[in-house]
Amino acid sequence: MGIAGSFKVALAGCGTVGGAVAKILVRDRELIKSRSGVDLELKYIIDIRFDHAKELGLDPGLFQTDLETALKDPEIQCVMELIGGTTLAREVIRRCLLAKKPVVTANKALLAHHGAELWALARREGVSLAFEASCGGGIPLIRAFYDGLLANRLDAFYGIVNGTCNFILTEMIQNGASYSQALKQAQEEGLAEADPTLDVSGGDSAHKLTIMAALAFGRKIELEKIPVTGIDALELMDVAFAQELGYVVKLLAVAQRQSGGLSLRVRPAFISKAHPLAWISGAFNAVSIYGHAVGHTMYYGRGAGGSPTASAVVADLIQIALGAYPLLFSQVKVWPDLGEEEVQLGPDQITSRFYIRTVMQDTPGMFAQMSAILSKHGISISSALQKEPPEDIPGGTGVPVVVTTHTTQEGLVRRALEEFDKTPGVRQKSVLIDIIDEHPERI
Amino acid sequence: MGIAGSFKVALAGCGTVGGAVAKILVRDRELIKSRSGVDLELKYIIDIRFDHAKELGLDPGLFQTDLETALKDPEIQCVMELIGGTTLAREVIRRCLLAKKPVVTANKALLAHHGAELWALARREGVSLAFEASCGGGIPLIRAFYDGLLANRLDAFYGIVNGTCNFILTEMIQNGASYSQALKQAQEEGLAEADPTLDVSGGDSAHKLTIMAALAFGRKIELEKIPVTGIDALELMDVAFAQELGYVVKLLAVAQRQSGGLSLRVRPAFISKAHPLAWISGAFNAVSIYGHAVGHTMYYGRGAGGSPTASAVVADLIQIALGAYPLLFSQVKVWPDLGEEEVQLGPDQITSRFYIRTVMQDTPGMFAQMSAILSKHGISISSALQKEPPEDIPGGTGVPVVVTTHTTQEGLVRRALEEFDKTPGVRQKSVLIDIIDEHPERI
Repeated sequence: MGIAGSFKVALAGCGTVGGAVAKILVRDRELIKSRSGVDLELKYIIDIRFDHAKELGLDPGLFQTDLETALKDPEIQCVMELIGGTTLAREVIRRCLLAKKPVVTANKALLAHHGAELWALARREGVSLAFEASCGGGIPLIRAFYDGLLANRLDAFYGIVNGTCNFILTEMIQNGASYSQALKQAQEEGLAEADPTLDVSGGDSAHKLTIMAALAFGRKIELEKIPVTGIDALELMDVAFAQELGYVVKLLAVAQRQSGGLSLRVRPAFISKAHPLAWISGAFNAVSIYGHAVGHTMYYGRGAGGSPTASAVVADLIQIALGAYPLLFSQVKVWPDLGEEEVQLGPDQITSRFYIRTVMQDTPGMFAQMSAILSKHGISISSALQKEPPEDIPGGTGVPVVVTTHTTQEGLVRRALEEFDKTPGVRQKSVLIDIIDEHPERI
Repeated sequence: MGIAGSFKVALAGCGTVGGAVAKILVRDRELIKSRSGVDLELKYIIDIRFDHAKELGLDPGLFQTDLETALKDPEIQCVMELIGGTTLAREVIRRCLLAKKPVVTANKALLAHHGAELWALARREGVSLAFEASCGGGIPLIRAFYDGLLANRLDAFYGIVNGTCNFILTEMIQNGASYSQALKQAQEEGLAEADPTLDVSGGDSAHKLTIMAALAFGRKIELEKIPVTGIDALELMDVAFAQELGYVVKLLAVAQRQSGGLSLRVRPAFISKAHPLAWISGAFNAVSIYGHAVGHTMYYGRGAGGSPTASAVVADLIQIALGAYPLLFSQVKVWPDLGEEEVQLGPDQITSRFYIRTVMQDTPGMFAQMSAILSKHGISISSALQKEPPEDIPGGTGVPVVVTTHTTQEGLVRRALEEFDKTPGVRQKSVLIDIIDEHPERI
């Protein structure tokens, strides 16, 4: 067997990722051919402006403003959607699929919102829709879900899937920077947007969680039902307490099977220093996936940036050109459009261990009151820590008191803290952070 | 498209891994079918003894002592070779391929020694030979080389690919155990064989390095040319100095493109605490792979054990049943039987930074003599450290002196140390350990 002639592709959207893809396809054409056996030929770069494409020195003969030209060209065997966003990109993918062109996309927001519809459309049209680049940038991570770990029932995964947040947290952890200082540094280094909301709010991580959870559990996942907390309210004091207790704070996308349904959430969370995710620093991403046969596996690499993301886009092109992806897309059963809906637990039903940090007046009996309230709500304390007050506690003097709980329902803890926060002598709203324990391997 | 009926397979060798595969295929048949779309049916378990198979409660109706029965059965669509070793297993695989049965194997020793011959035979017979389970146990790692990272020129990889050694080193690092104490503990926990030679000598790591290097560089690799040092001579003192200098000692399988050829070696080596490999503890494996587009990626999980390895074997079965692996095996160009031979640098030509630790008489001028000899051989010192003597230095009193070098040729350092070790006042043979720097990302 072999591929006769070149495999001609069109690129829609020549921004950071699209530009990097175009550059690799042109510059590394021989390298890719020598390794993959596929001669990938970029025939069209479709966009409305070509400033960036020109900067990269790409051949203006490839520039095309009308998608229809590519769709009507029978030579085009695949279109890459690298426009981003959920409106135009959705329409572009729909049109490509209806023209029976396989699509490769890196668009996590679109897939999280409208994935099931698009995968189903691809299936109806008998073409495939590949999306390795949508989660974890260049890490071959989506492949673990639809290929490498297929022999496993997947019980849980924990992901650091936003490099901006991980960079900010690493600055806070390693250099004691405040959130706003660390954000400023991320912006200066080009790792955070001028408006960083989508990243720091956890929204981007929730998009990726939606896609990965669908594949992991073979279920339809509703983005809107995922409880999401960002890192923008995180205080340095809690980052320091985490260290002291043997943990590290990471923004985690967490997915677990729990009794009654799936527990999916995006949270700044404490993870043990003994867990490899605790050591993922800077802008890197990593996802730990737990299978019933394989146990714990983890995938690490650059989760963003033009060149790493382009690596994943081109890997998908190659799989499509070789015919392997169409076989997997048509036969494997984990795709999000195929599964039933599954109960997604609300924030109140999710069970976890928790870290609670209050600031209270330094008088006898305060801690006893807190213990009594937690106990009344059925929450069992695992450890407690009272410290000398740091200088920068907001809300005036007081001592921080830290409690960690055994596994309990989040709703119980929230109600207990609501009650406790009204107690005279409590100086600020109590802070509640999930503690993510190592998932038990059952191999 | 879809698979009609079941995909019938035969298992040759029902030991630890074979037994785990059989158990998964029988117990999880519905799970695997529901996820992969493939109904894998175990039709024969071929072995000469069935004690272990009986212990696992496997159906004696599957037991078969004659491979020929499976080979002559037109229903059998794939055979798994899980016998191990390089003699019978080689013959079994040859016979399967000649009978045009695709083969899945976990046999790294066999592939390291005779892989090119077997891959070529598979190709001639028009069937495929899959081997995800040969490196890194259940981690979908081999797939990164032949699929996920195909858009990249791979410039280097560093692997912790022997769980026994990593367990022993973790005990030495974290608990201050001596090598012999840590080995004893590994044996007690079932993580080391009664005769641990193949693991602790680095031989097993060299097998995996041979397979991965062939795929990474698309070249024939000769196992015999790989310099291999085990962990059995490692002293606790050097483990402690590593920590003090900001490093961790790991048994690394290192592959790098260097000018003039490939630098391949298996060594206990210092790796910076800032590198994620430094944090891989216990029996886990991890491999860092560096691509020109994707940058640094890493793959982590259990590198041995029945159930994790079975996860990889079954993933290969599924890829073969779906037809995806045959497409990749026949079209992708990275397979070890296809590449030319490449220059493999000898130990003298390999360039690296080095850690040198001597024990010398505590008199003035000794360090100056050492510096002079290193300088004479063209070796530039990066840092130096002289400590109070620990109590347990072999060879009587003396002070340990530690030097780290800038990048240099190993041969130069070896010759300098030969000369230095003859100097009066030097109390024991100097210890030489590679320092593996983070591979520069060029994305």
